[in-house]
Amino acid sequence: MAPVTESHTDVLIIGAGPSGLAAAYWMARCGVNARIIDKRATKVFRGHADGLRAGTLELFDSMGFQHRVLHEGVEITEFCFWAPDENGNLKRTKQVRSESLDSAPYRMHGLSQGRIERYILDAIKDSSNLVVERGVAAESLEYDASLENNHEEYPITAKLRTLTEEELGAASTYGGSQSLSRDNVAPDDVEDLTPGRKHEPGTVEVVKAKYLISCDGGRSWTRKQLDIPFTGSTTEHIWGVLDVVPITNFPDVRRAATVSSEFGTLLVIPRERQLVRFYVPLTEVDASSGRFDRSSITLDMMREKVQQMLKPFQFDFKVCDWWTTYQIGQRIAQNFTKGRIYLAGDAVHNHSPKVGLGMNISLQDGFNIGWKVALVAKGVAHASILDTYEPERRRLAEMLVDFDRRWSPLFLKQQGGSPPDAHAKFEAMKEILDSVEPFAEGLLSHYGDSPLVHKNGQKLAKNLSPGEKLISAKVRSQADGITRWTTWVFQSDGRFRILLLAGDVRAEEQKHRVLTFGEYLASPDSVLRRFSRKAVKLHATIDVVTIHSAPVEDVQLFDFPEALRPFDDDNGWEYDKIWGDEKCHWDLQCDGRVYEKWGVDRLKGAVVALRPDQYIGWIGDLEDVEGLSKYFEGIFRTPKQRALL
Amino acid sequence: MAPVTESHTDVLIIGAGPSGLAAAYWMARCGVNARIIDKRATKVFRGHADGLRAGTLELFDSMGFQHRVLHEGVEITEFCFWAPDENGNLKRTKQVRSESLDSAPYRMHGLSQGRIERYILDAIKDSSNLVVERGVAAESLEYDASLENNHEEYPITAKLRTLTEEELGAASTYGGSQSLSRDNVAPDDVEDLTPGRKHEPGTVEVVKAKYLISCDGGRSWTRKQLDIPFTGSTTEHIWGVLDVVPITNFPDVRRAATVSSEFGTLLVIPRERQLVRFYVPLTEVDASSGRFDRSSITLDMMREKVQQMLKPFQFDFKVCDWWTTYQIGQRIAQNFTKGRIYLAGDAVHNHSPKVGLGMNISLQDGFNIGWKVALVAKGVAHASILDTYEPERRRLAEMLVDFDRRWSPLFLKQQGGSPPDAHAKFEAMKEILDSVEPFAEGLLSHYGDSPLVHKNGQKLAKNLSPGEKLISAKVRSQADGITRWTTWVFQSDGRFRILLLAGDVRAEEQKHRVLTFGEYLASPDSVLRRFSRKAVKLHATIDVVTIHSAPVEDVQLFDFPEALRPFDDDNGWEYDKIWGDEKCHWDLQCDGRVYEKWGVDRLKGAVVALRPDQYIGWIGDLEDVEGLSKYFEGIFRTPKQRALL
Repeated sequence: MAPVTESHTDVLIIGAGPSGLAAAYWMARCGVNARIIDKRATKVFRGHADGLRAGTLELFDSMGFQHRVLHEGVEITEFCFWAPDENGNLKRTKQVRSESLDSAPYRMHGLSQGRIERYILDAIKDSSNLVVERGVAAESLEYDASLENNHEEYPITAKLRTLTEEELGAASTYGGSQSLSRDNVAPDDVEDLTPGRKHEPGTVEVVKAKYLISCDGGRSWTRKQLDIPFTGSTTEHIWGVLDVVPITNFPDVRRAATVSSEFGTLLVIPRERQLVRFYVPLTEVDASSGRFDRSSITLDMMREKVQQMLKPFQFDFKVCDWWTTYQIGQRIAQNFTKGRIYLAGDAVHNHSPKVGLGMNISLQDGFNIGWKVALVAKGVAHASILDTYEPERRRLAEMLVDFDRRWSPLFLKQQGGSPPDAHAKFEAMKEILDSVEPFAEGLLSHYGDSPLVHKNGQKLAKNLSPGEKLISAKVRSQADGITRWTTWVFQSDGRFRILLLAGDVRAEEQKHRVLTFGEYLASPDSVLRRFSRKAVKLHATIDVVTIHSAPVEDVQLFDFPEALRPFDDDNGWEYDKIWGDEKCHWDLQCDGRVYEKWGVDRLKGAVVALRPDQYIGWIGDLEDVEGLSKYFEGIFRTPKQRALL
Repeated sequence: MAPVTESHTDVLIIGAGPSGLAAAYWMARCGVNARIIDKRATKVFRGHADGLRAGTLELFDSMGFQHRVLHEGVEITEFCFWAPDENGNLKRTKQVRSESLDSAPYRMHGLSQGRIERYILDAIKDSSNLVVERGVAAESLEYDASLENNHEEYPITAKLRTLTEEELGAASTYGGSQSLSRDNVAPDDVEDLTPGRKHEPGTVEVVKAKYLISCDGGRSWTRKQLDIPFTGSTTEHIWGVLDVVPITNFPDVRRAATVSSEFGTLLVIPRERQLVRFYVPLTEVDASSGRFDRSSITLDMMREKVQQMLKPFQFDFKVCDWWTTYQIGQRIAQNFTKGRIYLAGDAVHNHSPKVGLGMNISLQDGFNIGWKVALVAKGVAHASILDTYEPERRRLAEMLVDFDRRWSPLFLKQQGGSPPDAHAKFEAMKEILDSVEPFAEGLLSHYGDSPLVHKNGQKLAKNLSPGEKLISAKVRSQADGITRWTTWVFQSDGRFRILLLAGDVRAEEQKHRVLTFGEYLASPDSVLRRFSRKAVKLHATIDVVTIHSAPVEDVQLFDFPEALRPFDDDNGWEYDKIWGDEKCHWDLQCDGRVYEKWGVDRLKGAVVALRPDQYIGWIGDLEDVEGLSKYFEGIFRTPKQRALL
């Protein structure tokens, strides 16, 4: 046995799936002293989650890699409903698509979780030296609540052990028809087939941490250590999941589709590399009650079931990328946090994968707690903002589980095995899809009133709500005329933002209002200065972005006060802080209707405070610097307060 | 001295700049046995060329990495003309942009050559084991013309030497205010700071090659070995090039701009990473005739000159990424080829960099000769297609040099130093820009009649011309409803393509025509079968893509003959071969007007033969299988002909 070493870290993250990596992203971007471990030997390469919703793609845009998703992923354009007609012949009942995202930057995409992990890992690498320590498991966890009110203390003690090859081998039992090799993983994933080990197998290390973010999956070890009940139910229904390159003449195999039959309903999701995912009801194994014997299910059993359900169309495959089985369960953890320990992702919510939403919610969990812990760990923000994590995310977890409770039963075999009524089935499915869409696509989150969300200002921006994400819009850069989505403009760099909707600055009175607001920002009393040390740049903690409504050609960058276009001794003025809401005739998405979309007066504008995750925190007019101050006082420590930590 | 080894390769490429890499791309994609050497120790990281035109971006789309250019590069949206007004105050005379590219996928972008090299290197790595051998110079070249008619022979003998560290050091004298390090190059370029050496310094190797593509720059060693005259002129005018992060209040520093003054005209081009490129007229050193002493020019001299020219605006910089000086010259090589040796890029045309076109033409040179040599080296195509390289590319080189001869003088100091007439200057510049635009953006190439271009069929596709690139359009996939630019659909994989514009297949008669064409394709007499060995897939040499004009919902994939949607035993049917010209209400660029754009009858359609580089080779109607056969007979060898090689 190697000697036990002890070390300290500000933030420990357990689990490097989508939620753990999203949290780690913030540690990397904000320069927080952090560690991230995962008990698996490697990242995920195949299978697992694969549905990406509009809101998640927007988040990726702010993280700098949405172009990789669009390049590799498959856009899911339509949803097709198939069922037997009155003569028992399989027919397409309906082909529908939602129009609610027509003016949004992105729509749903199918792409394997392994690729998403790749992109986040690359983003972390590009901005830090943080590396996932793989093949490392936590073995014990102690929490000393008496230390939790002292920022400098380390209330968390975890014993980490580097697993042996044998232990690692036992962890990877998931299937597929081919073994992993450099010939069948993405070129940029090849190196990760055999990641370097930080420690010798068997090495034990005691790590003391100020904060712990645990994203260790549905069977969360951390949740069990903390004795947090995971309540809900598991039904007896067994499902298969199949990622194959199908050989089929079913016409909608490259569209999202449900196929109803006497055996239950099949779900079809198109994917990258000619793959298609099939969710297969396995009625044969349904009869047994309680936990089922996974080994009784074979790939051929699933092949035959799909063949039965797609008749009279042919179906077969030779390439199987991945397959697994699961039992439907819906559970939510009774608590998401304990002191300075935060659980995220599958560790706090379980549901069936058929809603195509799990990875999104998990990733957004990690994203949510990540920036909060990062800012508190750095001493920039009050610890009280951490209390917003559970209420903000629990509600979404509940909506997720509720969605699944309504959605999954529609895929079950009808009682008595009678053929389904095609139209009724379609109506039932469509009704659920329509009702969950705003939440599923990230347009509605219902974050409640808190230090981070002041429910005000609705009159000034009729279509924007504090507690919701800013509605994406395309704007035109004052400096260079380039068009960009706001998701790109508000990069996820850890800063809060003051979004100055400057209105029509050609009008003398409005120009004066903007100049006055600029003077406030540059003054020692401004929120930019009060919460930053003198030595750092004015915009280090809070960034300022302006979108005006005048034609870009009619105004100039230097008409705007300098606080709106920060100056740097080495790099001059920043050119990507002032934008116009102007129609651009060679980019049809930039339609000059941003103010209208947001419900903001084109002449008078408004001020919006944005959190680092692009959620709206506060709305006010240009004169309400007191309201703005109050908002940020609830979040940031002054340098004096920081010194007292 | 190490012993001299001898080896054989089908294709040797000298020079790994944009043109050499574009040629190497084809060797990688087509699986050709090839070598590529470069005498420099590393790839380019900074400076050099930086203008990317629409046509080049389309080419990148077909190579699979245009998304990286769009992500990192800077779109150049407008061109601004500045000059002193009647009172001598610097004013913006005009701000213009061309609308000719409004319905095209891309517009001009600014991005350093080093990043383009990165993307092509990655594309090569993703599809082959071909690696650039750096620090290797050719030292002698012999050509045995007596062998050139025998495909199996190696008429080229080159002696290659791995350079010593001293020799390498001498080659890198270009400037910048910071030395290169892992902190200031792109993360994915870090590994290339110290590329591995294949051989020990001093190692000499004799390489025998069937074909040589030389892309060794303006002072081409190969051109000199072959005694090819490089005719044209070098003027006495000296220019500086400056890549800096400017500290300036000049409002159009992030737009393309010309600034006229008594000292000459400054050219301003916005770039990635807050960089801006300045082309600076250095009148001080103009006086001396003949070649100038580069060491007499300093960075501060250039800084002061820009300061003078931008007055009354401030200008300074602290970060200089790269700078150099050059002397204007326009030259064209008397021959582009000698036997099986092909010169491409700067080796055959020299001009000033101010036209923002050099990298594009060079890259397209390499792209043009690359696929031709690859197909001939593999024995697939007749050697006669290689004769099309020089006539196709010489005309573009001449247009390039002619553009520069008209454009560059406008940047010179006026005779007598009198202030320029702002309006006259604008008109002169605008006239030149407008006249060269179709050629510069890749919309017009004037490739002449040849085995690769049959000048026919104009009546069937009024806006398409054999010898020009297919005009890009956005189409909707029959199988999945996804929209794509044709540049993506016609991937650069080395195959020719039959583009079947199937017309409105809802009409019975038209459907019959399409079925008949499909039967032809599947028959033993078809061009698909005649030029492929029996053992290989029907579409191995010639791909077939269909774009019909019926609504996507009204027809089904399996309505089309199987020759249009190839089947593979392992992977089933290909789903990206049948497309619709249909308006898509969530993608405004997909407007359902492709047939109209191309001038093709919506009911009756047409057939277009596309070369691997998306140039149109032949146009005919669905019944003209004889014309189609004749076209491909001039290009491909039958398996029997191959056996006789």
